Amino acid sequence: MIKASILVIFCLQSTILSAQQPKNNGRARDYGIHIGVMQTGNSNAITDVAGVKVGHTTLIQGDSVHTGVTAILPHDGNLFQAKVPAAIFIGNGFGKLAGYTQVEELGNIETPIILTNTLSVGTAIEAVVKYTLALPGNENIQSVNAIVGETNDGTLNDIRGLHITETDVLAAIRKADSQVVSEGNVGAGTGTVCFGFKGGIGTASRKLSASLGGYTIGVLVQSNYGGVLEINGAPVGQQLQQFSFRDKLLNNVDGSCMVVIATDAPLDARNLKRLAHRAFLGLGRTGGIASNGSGEYFIAFSTHPLLRIPHTGGSSVLTAPSLQNDYMSPLFMAVIEATEEAVINSLFAAETTKGYRSTIPALPKEKVLPILKKHQAIQAFSK
Amino acid sequence: MIKASILVIFCLQSTILSAQQPKNNGRARDYGIHIGVMQTGNSNAITDVAGVKVGHTTLIQGDSVHTGVTAILPHDGNLFQAKVPAAIFIGNGFGKLAGYTQVEELGNIETPIILTNTLSVGTAIEAVVKYTLALPGNENIQSVNAIVGETNDGTLNDIRGLHITETDVLAAIRKADSQVVSEGNVGAGTGTVCFGFKGGIGTASRKLSASLGGYTIGVLVQSNYGGVLEINGAPVGQQLQQFSFRDKLLNNVDGSCMVVIATDAPLDARNLKRLAHRAFLGLGRTGGIASNGSGEYFIAFSTHPLLRIPHTGGSSVLTAPSLQNDYMSPLFMAVIEATEEAVINSLFAAETTKGYRSTIPALPKEKVLPILKKHQAIQAFSK
Amino acid sequence: MIKASILVIFCLQSTILSAQQPKNNGRARDYGIHIGVMQTGNSNAITDVAGVKVGHTTLIQGDSVHTGVTAILPHDGNLFQAKVPAAIFIGNGFGKLAGYTQVEELGNIETPIILTNTLSVGTAIEAVVKYTLALPGNENIQSVNAIVGETNDGTLNDIRGLHITETDVLAAIRKADSQVVSEGNVGAGTGTVCFGFKGGIGTASRKLSASLGGYTIGVLVQSNYGGVLEINGAPVGQQLQQFSFRDKLLNNVDGSCMVVIATDAPLDARNLKRLAHRAFLGLGRTGGIASNGSGEYFIAFSTHPLLRIPHTGGSSVLTAPSLQNDYMSPLFMAVIEATEEAVINSLFAAETTKGYRSTIPALPKEKVLPILKKHQAIQAFSK
Amino acid sequence: MIKASILVIFCLQSTILSAQQPKNNGRARDYGIHIGVMQTGNSNAITDVAGVKVGHTTLIQGDSVHTGVTAILPHDGNLFQAKVPAAIFIGNGFGKLAGYTQVEELGNIETPIILTNTLSVGTAIEAVVKYTLALPGNENIQSVNAIVGETNDGTLNDIRGLHITETDVLAAIRKADSQVVSEGNVGAGTGTVCFGFKGGIGTASRKLSASLGGYTIGVLVQSNYGGVLEINGAPVGQQLQQFSFRDKLLNNVDGSCMVVIATDAPLDARNLKRLAHRAFLGLGRTGGIASNGSGEYFIAFSTHPLLRIPHTGGSSVLTAPSLQNDYMSPLFMAVIEATEEAVINSLFAAETTKGYRSTIPALPKEKVLPILKKHQAIQAFSK
Repeated sequence: MIKASILVIFCLQSTILSAQQPKNNGRARDYGIHIGVMQTGNSNAITDVAGVKVGHTTLIQGDSVHTGVTAILPHDGNLFQAKVPAAIFIGNGFGKLAGYTQVEELGNIETPIILTNTLSVGTAIEAVVKYTLALPGNENIQSVNAIVGETNDGTLNDIRGLHITETDVLAAIRKADSQVVSEGNVGAGTGTVCFGFKGGIGTASRKLSASLGGYTIGVLVQSNYGGVLEINGAPVGQQLQQFSFRDKLLNNVDGSCMVVIATDAPLDARNLKRLAHRAFLGLGRTGGIASNGSGEYFIAFSTHPLLRIPHTGGSSVLTAPSLQNDYMSPLFMAVIEATEEAVINSLFAAETTKGYRSTIPALPKEKVLPILKKHQAIQAFSK
Repeated sequence: MIKASILVIFCLQSTILSAQQPKNNGRARDYGIHIGVMQTGNSNAITDVAGVKVGHTTLIQGDSVHTGVTAILPHDGNLFQAKVPAAIFIGNGFGKLAGYTQVEELGNIETPIILTNTLSVGTAIEAVVKYTLALPGNENIQSVNAIVGETNDGTLNDIRGLHITETDVLAAIRKADSQVVSEGNVGAGTGTVCFGFKGGIGTASRKLSASLGGYTIGVLVQSNYGGVLEINGAPVGQQLQQFSFRDKLLNNVDGSCMVVIATDAPLDARNLKRLAHRAFLGLGRTGGIASNGSGEYFIAFSTHPLLRIPHTGGSSVLTAPSLQNDYMSPLFMAVIEATEEAVINSLFAAETTKGYRSTIPALPKEKVLPILKKHQAIQAFSK
Repeated sequence: MIKASILVIFCLQSTILSAQQPKNNGRARDYGIHIGVMQTGNSNAITDVAGVKVGHTTLIQGDSVHTGVTAILPHDGNLFQAKVPAAIFIGNGFGKLAGYTQVEELGNIETPIILTNTLSVGTAIEAVVKYTLALPGNENIQSVNAIVGETNDGTLNDIRGLHITETDVLAAIRKADSQVVSEGNVGAGTGTVCFGFKGGIGTASRKLSASLGGYTIGVLVQSNYGGVLEINGAPVGQQLQQFSFRDKLLNNVDGSCMVVIATDAPLDARNLKRLAHRAFLGLGRTGGIASNGSGEYFIAFSTHPLLRIPHTGGSSVLTAPSLQNDYMSPLFMAVIEATEEAVINSLFAAETTKGYRSTIPALPKEKVLPILKKHQAIQAFSK
Repeated sequence: MIKASILVIFCLQSTILSAQQPKNNGRARDYGIHIGVMQTGNSNAITDVAGVKVGHTTLIQGDSVHTGVTAILPHDGNLFQAKVPAAIFIGNGFGKLAGYTQVEELGNIETPIILTNTLSVGTAIEAVVKYTLALPGNENIQSVNAIVGETNDGTLNDIRGLHITETDVLAAIRKADSQVVSEGNVGAGTGTVCFGFKGGIGTASRKLSASLGGYTIGVLVQSNYGGVLEINGAPVGQQLQQFSFRDKLLNNVDGSCMVVIATDAPLDARNLKRLAHRAFLGLGRTGGIASNGSGEYFIAFSTHPLLRIPHTGGSSVLTAPSLQNDYMSPLFMAVIEATEEAVINSLFAAETTKGYRSTIPALPKEKVLPILKKHQAIQAFSK
């Protein structure tokens, strides 16, 4: 992102292209980094779960504004009228996630999931409320539980300037599609920092073998946290001598991570919460420590068509399938792997950014790849 | 509130007077209704807890707009720089309370507590964020955990019209004082409905005897829920044949209740959560049933001066007093009584309102007082 | 229970008769006390939920031993092989309930529910483990999640003597049937104290009208707590000047309450937890304050036959009905009413007991009934 | 463990020596495996936290009985009369941990922490109750919240035989000291299996630099779970082609892990819970997946002398230090590192065991060390 000023103009004129155009940076797997033992989905992205859509609004203005919005839509229809079963696990509650308590009580999500920066949650809620009120069929609804997550991009972004507008949020929803998910400096990841490097949006997926149910689990992260970076087991942060507490208290450590998990498995809210809970382990595998200021939230939903919850008009009793407890373990392993890989993908895709308070470098692949090779974390074994 | 159109003009011109002027309606205790066995504080209000301030913005426009904002400030200073220990208990999570997870994680509150209507939570967050960013001393902060509760006033208010503005929220904060707390159709209670009657804001307090610690517990409610109304033990809803499920499914039942609890007792976040938990029983004593759609939240904080948590500059270790578990029970009894009485006060203060979808009558005192007399719920015993 | 020594012999010789023989004391409703507005089930007992069985072991030895065991069986079969969906809400966690975390994680119960005294939980777990291991079909199981609740009967019982044996626990399970549930000084309620009077086992039920789903909700309590007793809204504790904190700190206040809730409604674990949560309000309506030492637990399960969870051999996906959120409110009202009435029934059935540390009087009906009459809490209205 | 029969005799005659004698197997660090970036405490064990004591009872009888008890004592005194602040985080609730709800409510622990096998929890509770009742000064107590954790050792142990006795539990408490903590096949780890290899007891610690507070964090694990083993980042399970779901559903995957965390930092229950929460990440770093059947519990307590909670006789208000939220992050990193290393230590210490249902091999160091070398996970970098 050397020519930020040019990109700005580009963004303003044609945000859709900008946001959805895949970056040319290779993904972790393109470099031979095979995280875990399970197979990925077709695109190794949350959109491998059929029907899930992702859209970004990227907001860059000069050096001072680097922020944005990412919207994840569980399905194509009116989400309020056809809610999806959902659950949220909290790894660290130091964050401003809107919508948590209702998901916990009712076990469903009724709006797009919006990710943005910490101080723009209010604006995003307003936008989601207006979006939902305005949908055909929602003329009489009076209550909307907007799901809005955030991380703090204040190092690169003039966050106090409150640059996100309702229009930006609505644009992310409108642009959402099931195509290739852009990663790195896009959407809600435009200004985030991860392990001292430029973080951002990342995604990955796993597809279980037929004998394990054949389900797909997709993950999207907004990475913005610290610890001691580890990539596929290689001690990158340690080798680069860049990690939390190396120099002084709270050095590089705070930040947050939002993790959105989609699956086509028929999971009820209870098992979705268990799934979300395990994704926390994926962050640990990247070297995350859920530091004091690092709000970490895991939002999981099922797209299974028989689990849609009608807002009105349904029967009092819904008869629906649910995967039994004993069959959850492969999904747990899958979500851990996909979460780990989504974070690494966010780092591989992100680009050096000169921002509001400082310049944050991209992951220095020229230094990192040799470390990975030394530690046999690249193509170390065929599967 | 017969001449609503006149009141509108009055409100627009002089909202402060409107909001803060005490209603002439008597409070429950003025009618001889003595709820519980403990003593009230001086004003039988949340402001009996020294330093707590309450402010209302009341928004009425013709018949269609009946809504507002209520702000509760734990103390007079910069709340962000001198946070207060706090906790939130969820009686029913079907609501949109902003700020929950951070309070749960960190055990403190760093902004005013705002109550408003369901669809205006986003606007209120934005206002609180801007208010906090702008306070002297907060020039460098980049994260604000706004506490915003809500109930749904869509029966009397054109809630889809999103009439609350940031200015309304800021006005409620600015107007907050420690004087008499207005009750009934004011602030966030302007358009609420409780047990089929006009609800609203209510408050009450209890002062423990010196042998029990001498602490004060104050409660403020935004009442907006259903069930089978009981006043000081008298079966009012049953006698009036007005209660949930009398006629048809979900009849009169949904709604919500926000309960804010202040105390000067030195409670840490854990014991504040236990205190908030017990307040739920106070709603039960009024006949509330925490129906499916009735989000019920209990926000408790301590004003004890030695428990203030500095945002920066403090020592790594804070030495502070805390009341031990064994001494909590009297506070539990106090918060139950005060919550029950605050709801009844909201009903006694509220006035018949012709609103957006229907006219909701005030509690018919002419019918209710005889029921209370018959059941010896008025001056039935001296203490 | 004037001739306790005779009763002891009787118990030892013929515990089954003793435990299951209904007491002659009238129940609250026999005195014209109609709590709430909903209809009771046929027997106004937890056994109105088809298939639920209750058994008691009552242990009385002279004045010093007054304790026992109560077993509740969700159905007649091998519970381990056909688990029932279940959830537990904690009103106050100061208790020793065994089995909580697994129910929370897996959403089911796989053993009888055992209630006993605080110090006998270990013994009861051992007994349930052995019972379960020994059931035909369980030859290979290696893990048993025993559900054992308790309250402290140390005022009337030599609790430190650890008088409950595994045999006592097994006897309660074996004796369980669907007949009339004994109340008062039986089973786990043999030595309990409630509001300063003799408490014990109580039960009640509600049957929803067909338009509300026609479901039955049954409740059984082991009452052993304090506060300010209120019966059907009448301020009994206040009128008798017997309530917590009247004299000194912690006076009469501690104790606990176990509440077991059965329903035939097709509820998943999430909605069972919501149901259990509301039952807490029923305790509040009796004047309970969930005092510091009063562990209060609410265990709910569904007996719906299509919701049975096979331990092995089932399909990975279970297709089953579940009542939707919007239809839960009548069940909430029902469980609140039944919990309140079950406590009052426990007080009406219990008898004065001379025990280990003192003599605890039965509820003095000769004083209480006039108070109820004065407050129109008896036959005050026909329904 | 080639000559198991000899060991049996040795155990029976001299269990104390057997249990406390340090194994000769090297610990992970002895092989040059340096996990994380922080310094260990003096002994790299939970007993580095001053005052903490650990004791084991190891029960081996022929091939069929391989089980035991491990006791952890937070301090040397009467724990009931001088309780310690504590919290428990649940990674996976599919377990039988006794004592959870009271710790959550009251924020303290009042007994030794006992670990044993799944079906012996009841016996262990009984033993702890009797131990506590019998302590001088406890003559009048009537309530004891025994903390008993478990994992399932049914592969190597005839768990249905219920071989643990109260005497075994009391012996582990009595033998507890602050000396070298035995690891591997001892105490509650005698029969456990981890990643398909013999697991057991492991321990580790971290000591923060003075600038980060100088606190010590010690961890002890009972390892008994599955996933894809990773040692210091090296993909051991993958290289050995031994991991969950490689062959068939639920292959090798279930099991559990108990993690006990001690610190001398002045943490209140809330921050202890946050600390325990982060330890979950340490399990993730070893390749754990918190599979369906793998109950994972994290019990944390502070030994800080000013935080002791008197059972009776204390003031109503306790003034005590507490570390503030902003200073928690280094402790989070420390507990993650120590948890990871404790698990690896358990694997390095454990020995091949011929047991009830099969023979479980020790971690094959001859294969594992080359993998670690290849992946530069041994002495790959100096610190």
